[in-house]
Amino acid sequence: MAIAQVTIVPIGTGSTSLSDYVADLCRVLETEAGAAGSGVRYELTAMSTIIEGELDAILRIVRQMHESPFSHGAQRVSTSITIDDRRDRAGSSAQKVAWVEEKLRGVD
Amino acid sequence: MAIAQVTIVPIGTGSTSLSDYVADLCRVLETEAGAAGSGVRYELTAMSTIIEGELDAILRIVRQMHESPFSHGAQRVSTSITIDDRRDRAGSSAQKVAWVEEKLRGVD
Amino acid sequence: MAIAQVTIVPIGTGSTSLSDYVADLCRVLETEAGAAGSGVRYELTAMSTIIEGELDAILRIVRQMHESPFSHGAQRVSTSITIDDRRDRAGSSAQKVAWVEEKLRGVD
Amino acid sequence: MAIAQVTIVPIGTGSTSLSDYVADLCRVLETEAGAAGSGVRYELTAMSTIIEGELDAILRIVRQMHESPFSHGAQRVSTSITIDDRRDRAGSSAQKVAWVEEKLRGVD
Repeated sequence: MAIAQVTIVPIGTGSTSLSDYVADLCRVLETEAGAAGSGVRYELTAMSTIIEGELDAILRIVRQMHESPFSHGAQRVSTSITIDDRRDRAGSSAQKVAWVEEKLRGVD
Repeated sequence: MAIAQVTIVPIGTGSTSLSDYVADLCRVLETEAGAAGSGVRYELTAMSTIIEGELDAILRIVRQMHESPFSHGAQRVSTSITIDDRRDRAGSSAQKVAWVEEKLRGVD
Repeated sequence: MAIAQVTIVPIGTGSTSLSDYVADLCRVLETEAGAAGSGVRYELTAMSTIIEGELDAILRIVRQMHESPFSHGAQRVSTSITIDDRRDRAGSSAQKVAWVEEKLRGVD
Repeated sequence: MAIAQVTIVPIGTGSTSLSDYVADLCRVLETEAGAAGSGVRYELTAMSTIIEGELDAILRIVRQMHESPFSHGAQRVSTSITIDDRRDRAGSSAQKVAWVEEKLRGVD
């Protein structure tokens, strides 16, 4: 299981608003992550989409998300992906946040 | 108002667990954002910290967060910052997510 | 043709020096990019590796590079990829830099 | 001494070409890095600008570069900064690359 943070930005679209493009990306993500047996979960934040699951499943979905702005008219797309892949200990996205919050509360 | 996504990773620390360092970063952030008149809000995600406020206030806080792992023994730190600075329309972190969710529900 | 900037960092390795890991990544890249018909070119900078070619070829190679630190003992790896994919005009890595340098010299 | 990799992208400009904006950024960088005693060096790559020097000097310059697209008409700017700050051993940008190349040649 890996966790990835993904930001996809169309360039030169003539409007500073990107929410239409982001909604389209999210539809691709919903469909793919929702497919039977994908094992992929995701969350939208103000700066990116956080996707967790098997790394190859994540990358396959990101590859399709990257195509989305092009199929809605964009001619140039900048995609940033950061992958956190930890193999010594399973840790979901929720657990990573919980571990930090425990430390903040002084729980050990 | 700008929004920034910040990830700070100590390198060569000998343990794959980073939650102690992240908790320390969060304490710096809590103190600084909580200072009277900072106008800065933040949120911890599984991959980064999202900080919103005046850009100079954000950068001043990130500069202090970057110092945190060094003051806890790290000798090398990798810090990544992505800033989204939009000046034609005010949009908080919560609003950016709400705009996308409205599109997803077909509301215009 | 797309251009990607890739940084792969093993976490918790106990040493601040990463050059052994980076050299291993580069060997994977050399082998893959050098394979007949790959059409992939690359360049090492102080902060990342810049790879250009067909997007799917780039992603396949990055996927293998990401595996490299694990096969040399790392238990956690952070990989960052930024893709610039422009489809209205072909522009190699060298041309992108040349266009900016022309503007800087006042050539139009 | 730190090394930073910086990418500044104006959003919604109506053209997929960004070289005018990048040239403007580079002029800001040239002026600031060239100022007496700045101690800052830089290099333009196809994906980013690599800047090395004292971290506070780097951040001050990046802050000014970030303003550049706004003063040329952009209304939204996305700026990404990755900082590599190593304090146990001095290593310039050129040295980081040289260390990897030595490993690749089998020199130790």
